[in-house]
Amino acid sequence: MPMSSLTRRSLLAGSAVAALAAGAEPLTAAAPPAEKQAPGIYRYKIGTFEVTALYDGIWYRPITDTFIRNAPFAAVEQALDVAFMPHDKLETPFTTLIVNTGKRLVLLDTGTGGQIAPTAGMIADNLAAAGIAPKDVDQIVISHFHPDHINGIKDKDNALIFADAEIMVPEPEWAYWMDDATMNAAPADQKLTFLNQRRIFSDIAEQVTRYTPGKEVSPGIVSLPAPGHTPGHTVFAIHSGDASLLVLSDTAQHPAIFARHPDWQAAFDVDGDQAVATRKKLFDRAAADRMLVTGYHFPFPACGHLIKTASGYEHVPLPWQPRL
Amino acid sequence: MPMSSLTRRSLLAGSAVAALAAGAEPLTAAAPPAEKQAPGIYRYKIGTFEVTALYDGIWYRPITDTFIRNAPFAAVEQALDVAFMPHDKLETPFTTLIVNTGKRLVLLDTGTGGQIAPTAGMIADNLAAAGIAPKDVDQIVISHFHPDHINGIKDKDNALIFADAEIMVPEPEWAYWMDDATMNAAPADQKLTFLNQRRIFSDIAEQVTRYTPGKEVSPGIVSLPAPGHTPGHTVFAIHSGDASLLVLSDTAQHPAIFARHPDWQAAFDVDGDQAVATRKKLFDRAAADRMLVTGYHFPFPACGHLIKTASGYEHVPLPWQPRL
Repeated sequence: MPMSSLTRRSLLAGSAVAALAAGAEPLTAAAPPAEKQAPGIYRYKIGTFEVTALYDGIWYRPITDTFIRNAPFAAVEQALDVAFMPHDKLETPFTTLIVNTGKRLVLLDTGTGGQIAPTAGMIADNLAAAGIAPKDVDQIVISHFHPDHINGIKDKDNALIFADAEIMVPEPEWAYWMDDATMNAAPADQKLTFLNQRRIFSDIAEQVTRYTPGKEVSPGIVSLPAPGHTPGHTVFAIHSGDASLLVLSDTAQHPAIFARHPDWQAAFDVDGDQAVATRKKLFDRAAADRMLVTGYHFPFPACGHLIKTASGYEHVPLPWQPRL
Repeated sequence: MPMSSLTRRSLLAGSAVAALAAGAEPLTAAAPPAEKQAPGIYRYKIGTFEVTALYDGIWYRPITDTFIRNAPFAAVEQALDVAFMPHDKLETPFTTLIVNTGKRLVLLDTGTGGQIAPTAGMIADNLAAAGIAPKDVDQIVISHFHPDHINGIKDKDNALIFADAEIMVPEPEWAYWMDDATMNAAPADQKLTFLNQRRIFSDIAEQVTRYTPGKEVSPGIVSLPAPGHTPGHTVFAIHSGDASLLVLSDTAQHPAIFARHPDWQAAFDVDGDQAVATRKKLFDRAAADRMLVTGYHFPFPACGHLIKTASGYEHVPLPWQPRL
């Protein structure tokens, strides 16, 4: 096939020829296909800390033309096109972090617990592939109370998955979401979120430690208030030696949409104006200081840098390294 | 720590506090650090074919201001900056492909064989992690004769690594690199490449099949001539059912440099003008038809799409999928 005739159509035509040839082929490959994905784990060092990016999968979140409150859907569709994403679903990957400080194993957010989408819920398998048992986790630190961050605390039968872990949650998240008056005043379609938070936390309230964002939640892990997405939404600065990592949580969801268009307010932001202000403040700082960052909804393994562009920010993924 | 004081300096100051706190901390994490990288394998389907991206590592190739023949080094430095790359080394990742057609296990290029850089040579470990034994490989198809593509045919002691595999190489590569007159006319610093090719191929010449680019090298895998980088440089169109993958080989090395700046001619291109013409032709076609593509030196797992921009092309990686 000369290169000049290489088109999608000619590839398909070639495929028919190949099918014929394959039919005449007597061999069978010695190695069977694996028929499953490779483990979604990736490790990197922050000083002496070992960080493991732990992949939970992707939720293809249904969206409509009301998904972005303050931009015409045509603009959203253009952003989705450039990123090779469909128009009716927002690709929403989940990457939690395990931080091994040498003294503690800390889990930042817990994934979906397999309770949100059939294409997510891989934390258990990936934790096993990483050689970590759920009971090895000493501490869980939650960034905010959306289901994809807290559901992994418990399994579908409401039992704790990480039996020995201390659970730390932002005080202002607790105050907002666990308040019955707030729940009762919420629109009907948001009540499920409040009820889910009660399912997770009500019967373990005594075991949950509430922290004030700004506090060092674990040695070397400082929480920072980042409100807007939710009232108590929190990010984390991890530091060891002269190295640091800024954990952006949901300051921006998929960077192809929300880093490139930092003014866009998603329907799921509790306070859109505040979410945008927080995003720009943190992203400006991260870009100016060339900080290493990770985002919960950035494509796995989710770590990299941010650069400021004429119209927004661009996420520059770190290359997959062969060694730590 | 209030968000307004979040700077790199304040993170470091925080670190000193953390060190004190950590000193007072009596715990030891139950799970020891892994102290090694996770397996570099990633699987995806092309029709009924199962493709495994097999990571060999990264060579940090030393470069100087003569690396790009036709651009001022200041422009190259700016491109490196935007990609968070150092100025004196070109990050050069290697991703080979295993294609399991169900009938054959085909390996496209073989990696460095651990003979180029201490940060590369992970194919053996990653192949094992993928559950594939070297003897399971039925066929090796080589894109061109640069050492990072052919050295993995043999180990350091000159023994074949994939003992049962048929080895297929592009005829025009053989004609160019194995010609003694061409070798003798080459500058002294390029002689090592010619000698390396003789080390790999001379004693197995009878076992090597030479194919003409354009030929279907295996059912469903069509080779396509893509000269310039080397005279016989070859790319591949893989097709199964109505799905296809364009394997770009070295049409562009790191996309942050050579996709964004398609006119740039690297010192390693045998014919720079032809390399640029080939790159633009293939990239234009891939972008226009929104083809799924992979590049040997694209960041792992190296598969995605290309979009055309005002000044060049942008590589849009596929998101890591939880399932095949």
